[in-house]
Amino acid sequence: LIKILDTLKENAALVEKALDFYLPKEGDYPESIHKAMRYSVMAGGKRIRPTLVIKAAELFGTSYEKVLPTACAIEMIHTYSLIHDDLPMMDNDDFRRGKPTCHKVYGEAVALLAGDALLTHAFLTITKNAAIEGISDKSVIDVIEKISEAAGSNGMIGGQTVDIEVSGKSINEDTLYYIDLHKTACLLQASLWSGARLAEANNDDLRTLELYGEKIGIIFQITDDILDVIGDEKLIGKPVGSDLKNNKNNFMSMYGFDECRRIIEKLSIEAKELVMPYEKGQGFFTDFVDFLANRNL
Amino acid sequence: LIKILDTLKENAALVEKALDFYLPKEGDYPESIHKAMRYSVMAGGKRIRPTLVIKAAELFGTSYEKVLPTACAIEMIHTYSLIHDDLPMMDNDDFRRGKPTCHKVYGEAVALLAGDALLTHAFLTITKNAAIEGISDKSVIDVIEKISEAAGSNGMIGGQTVDIEVSGKSINEDTLYYIDLHKTACLLQASLWSGARLAEANNDDLRTLELYGEKIGIIFQITDDILDVIGDEKLIGKPVGSDLKNNKNNFMSMYGFDECRRIIEKLSIEAKELVMPYEKGQGFFTDFVDFLANRNL
Repeated sequence: LIKILDTLKENAALVEKALDFYLPKEGDYPESIHKAMRYSVMAGGKRIRPTLVIKAAELFGTSYEKVLPTACAIEMIHTYSLIHDDLPMMDNDDFRRGKPTCHKVYGEAVALLAGDALLTHAFLTITKNAAIEGISDKSVIDVIEKISEAAGSNGMIGGQTVDIEVSGKSINEDTLYYIDLHKTACLLQASLWSGARLAEANNDDLRTLELYGEKIGIIFQITDDILDVIGDEKLIGKPVGSDLKNNKNNFMSMYGFDECRRIIEKLSIEAKELVMPYEKGQGFFTDFVDFLANRNL
Repeated sequence: LIKILDTLKENAALVEKALDFYLPKEGDYPESIHKAMRYSVMAGGKRIRPTLVIKAAELFGTSYEKVLPTACAIEMIHTYSLIHDDLPMMDNDDFRRGKPTCHKVYGEAVALLAGDALLTHAFLTITKNAAIEGISDKSVIDVIEKISEAAGSNGMIGGQTVDIEVSGKSINEDTLYYIDLHKTACLLQASLWSGARLAEANNDDLRTLELYGEKIGIIFQITDDILDVIGDEKLIGKPVGSDLKNNKNNFMSMYGFDECRRIIEKLSIEAKELVMPYEKGQGFFTDFVDFLANRNL
């Protein structure tokens, strides 16, 4: 577990250096929007999605520096979704990653526009991948297609829409699964797929990684729901109990702790079986399953 | 002027048919977001941006049906910007194109997400252009790059940011020009550039069209400011006097009607001179300048 934490830290450092390079400069006019964009993107976080892009590319023989634009782009999309999610008209959260949320610092209008700008800048950043030697134009277009599907109304935004609409209502297992698959898993799946696609992985391998992404996405969301109940506020950087406060349906409210652990165990075994053939027993992707299943942050 | 109106109507019809094809279906789950996306995109409008994509492609020998995905994508981006602009935290407008605004019908949260989804779906739609025979992968990537620059924090969103920040304050000519160039002209320029780029126009021609786009963008914004004062509410589909109500700085408040007309005349001559060599005297782009300069809707 210490090894995987080191790997995540190393990759987060690489990603943050690249984000600093690909984001507009803080002093660019108009300053407020560029400061707000950087404030939220550089607020920390585990950089899981860009790390998955990098590790998926490496699995198929392409080194990390060749996929950094796409890795950064997915982190920008993730950050935009958090900024908009935190707005008063949505979840109305004041803290994120231990800091005041974007609209608390820059006001609602600039926060809205900073989210819009990060989403837009993400697609600009993916196009920079086409200038890197060894990356085909076709793979870049495929990646833009995949990421826009995963982040759109049939992906992440679809999940957010249902999440909001069912707030305070009791829902069934299918709806809960729809929300978590779309709100969380889709972008993780697209991260894995994109890294592998830029490395020219074949369709069978891309499909396997997507299945792996679905399973770790659900594990990620269940552990998120558990941490919202029993987590350490200092470690996770936001108040615990916010789901309860907002009447959010989640895995904890539907199944309780013991059953959540059982589901995590089952999904962990399935996820590892998918990637073991590629890693000859053990490697980043198998370790990452254990990290997610047992994370406390 | 009747001929240009017919051309605009014909192209709007083509674009609306294509939008119906490229947008997610209204019945797709979750229905609220897909209904909201279609509600705003299909609310009418002159479809000027997609028509510029089509006409720029035709100017360089590529027929309209080969650039429809990109034409639709730019209309989606334009519509998302209107949805977010109309939100209570921004301009707080209740009517747009003669209909209640998106958040009035679907609520603020779904309107926010519908805007996000349209922006995301726009980039998915541009990738569909790569599947069309005779369109190069490289040109599609270049178009994604150009459009994301034009719509981002150094383009349209930059203009919106400054527009909000100066609301109620007096500004100088440079700031007013920055706002209008970025908020309005950038996306018109990107429309022209994209159509021509997909048609493999050379760099000199692309640059000429961008200059033309800058001039018609400013003409468009000045006539918009004039119509906000003396326009016919029924024709323009939104209340007149909203800029005055919101203390917006614009060309009318800075220069008054007579000077605005003089600026329009000067820009019209310059814009026509740029495109005349391509149209051998007269054609869509020269007529379009006269249409914009004299529009009442």
